Amino acid sequence: MSWVEQPAAVLDQEAQAAAQARQQQLTKPRGSLGQLEQLAIRLAGMQGRSCPRLEQVSIAVFAADHGVTAEGISAYPQAVTAEMIRNFARGGAAISVAARALGAQLRVWNLGTVVELEPLPGVESRLIAPQTANLLHVPAMTDDQLQQALGVGREAVLHLSCDLFIGGEMGIGNTTSATALAAALTGQTAATLAGPGTGLDDQGITHKTEVIEQALQRQGTANQPLELLAGLGGFEIAALAGAYLTCAQQGIPALVDGFICSVAALLACRIQPGVADWLIFAHHSAEPGYAVLRQALPSSPLLDLGLRLGEGSGAATALPLLRMACALHAEMATFEEASVSEKNE
Amino acid sequence: MSWVEQPAAVLDQEAQAAAQARQQQLTKPRGSLGQLEQLAIRLAGMQGRSCPRLEQVSIAVFAADHGVTAEGISAYPQAVTAEMIRNFARGGAAISVAARALGAQLRVWNLGTVVELEPLPGVESRLIAPQTANLLHVPAMTDDQLQQALGVGREAVLHLSCDLFIGGEMGIGNTTSATALAAALTGQTAATLAGPGTGLDDQGITHKTEVIEQALQRQGTANQPLELLAGLGGFEIAALAGAYLTCAQQGIPALVDGFICSVAALLACRIQPGVADWLIFAHHSAEPGYAVLRQALPSSPLLDLGLRLGEGSGAATALPLLRMACALHAEMATFEEASVSEKNE
Repeated sequence: MSWVEQPAAVLDQEAQAAAQARQQQLTKPRGSLGQLEQLAIRLAGMQGRSCPRLEQVSIAVFAADHGVTAEGISAYPQAVTAEMIRNFARGGAAISVAARALGAQLRVWNLGTVVELEPLPGVESRLIAPQTANLLHVPAMTDDQLQQALGVGREAVLHLSCDLFIGGEMGIGNTTSATALAAALTGQTAATLAGPGTGLDDQGITHKTEVIEQALQRQGTANQPLELLAGLGGFEIAALAGAYLTCAQQGIPALVDGFICSVAALLACRIQPGVADWLIFAHHSAEPGYAVLRQALPSSPLLDLGLRLGEGSGAATALPLLRMACALHAEMATFEEASVSEKNE
Repeated sequence: MSWVEQPAAVLDQEAQAAAQARQQQLTKPRGSLGQLEQLAIRLAGMQGRSCPRLEQVSIAVFAADHGVTAEGISAYPQAVTAEMIRNFARGGAAISVAARALGAQLRVWNLGTVVELEPLPGVESRLIAPQTANLLHVPAMTDDQLQQALGVGREAVLHLSCDLFIGGEMGIGNTTSATALAAALTGQTAATLAGPGTGLDDQGITHKTEVIEQALQRQGTANQPLELLAGLGGFEIAALAGAYLTCAQQGIPALVDGFICSVAALLACRIQPGVADWLIFAHHSAEPGYAVLRQALPSSPLLDLGLRLGEGSGAATALPLLRMACALHAEMATFEEASVSEKNE
């Protein structure tokens, strides 16, 4: 049995029940901390402790190039994927800044770029190919490449010792790949899902939609998640799916970023339904396809701030909400400790 | 001229324009950080620096009792106001925990509680009366009491040297007062606005609605903000309005908490329209009246997490988003610095 087929770990019901009971005793009207209460309770179940913590947070950004950029479906030149990997390494990208601000560890996994990169600090090279094949005409990757990409995601998680995992992505052209996957996963049309990505105009979106529609026709009726990933995916999207699968198998909570990461997360859930227990969705992406995808996700995102950058930046932005949930849960006084009167009954 | 009538400070257009220009140069697709970009730009205009900062944050919680609790409009006994002030001082309340987690200064201002309190660390006594008069039958406060309460809010801000102000409130019965004010401010009925507050059942909400309707009839057509505050307000709500006015006059950004604070903020905006420039709304409260009130607010709230605790806890929860906005704005590399290619034109 391949590691991909191994089931997700089981939540700790006892820790979750203890956290739920604690929430009822804290000095506040019951339920008045809304989703912050639910986050603390869910994290307790995932971490197997009644007071969860989020001190050690690891961010892995997976980067790769896409053959479909030959179709002119991105507002930016393909060289930007490699240029942004350098920017990650130098600390100037959004996710680099966010990781520093949050005291989180950041590692970048390069799965293949058209522009060859020199060795860079904090960047692991796991080159599968300079780019995927052009998914308009042929499957984006071979089965062997798919297994390699999934395996990089696994490797990125297995070496960690952390309280929470955040995945991010970089790859010019990857909203085309992710939108095609989302269409196949949700049964919606490309026209319903396609959006500007990094900044296409209306004409560009129309062309991108046609490319995705043709790719879906080429893909045919194959609808198993691994077939979809090989046919329409990107190396970084497959790596993310592998990372979420591994988080769930290893019992590590994962905070999922926006559109592309959520597509990868949904694929991981289709491969192993138990993965859903281990995912917290960070934010509602401004990429229009997210509104459709959201209906298919196992839980609702926390933020809706119009973000559409990727890199894991939306998940990083949401992390302090989870930390606040944990602090309130652990440190607030109970009614008894504080001698505060309870509700009239 | 009373200090209340002094106009709000003017935003620094130059700093705001410089921040806007900087956002266009950072290594991300334009607009892809959504509201985080707008927050950095707004804060630049408020702070008069192209890279705003949020190191020194001050939280002031205003607490007071309400005569209208005699009508049985709260799920908790009135003694809880004083008991919670003790809990704030001991560090066990939600806002105490949040302030510690955020490295923010917390001060509590007691404007009058039915249960007399001993001196407490971090709590300033500015006792106006043990509670407001019962707004069902008579105006909640005299003009003199209103001026005192506004003045406590002013005092709480004037002694500060901070990058951002957060106001909070505690007062059993204060959603009744705030809902009456919101009805008068928005022209909506009590039935449209009234909610469970700390946890009333349906019967309790029906009774609370009747109390508010009768109070609005008693109040008659008086609709000037200061008349409304005196007639239907609470000491802590008036203090919050005074604090927001003073922030705007002194040029200090204010992050506004949920339903009750937003009512006070709206009153401050009605007194001085320029106050709106200095307010950032933190979250969409779960108290049903907020959805109505929101239409009347000058800008949209950042979070919607089902919070309805008060104390400033929702604003504290949103603060890390503002800090992230500032960090990204200040520390991300520009396209030129990072040698990243710009968008295809």
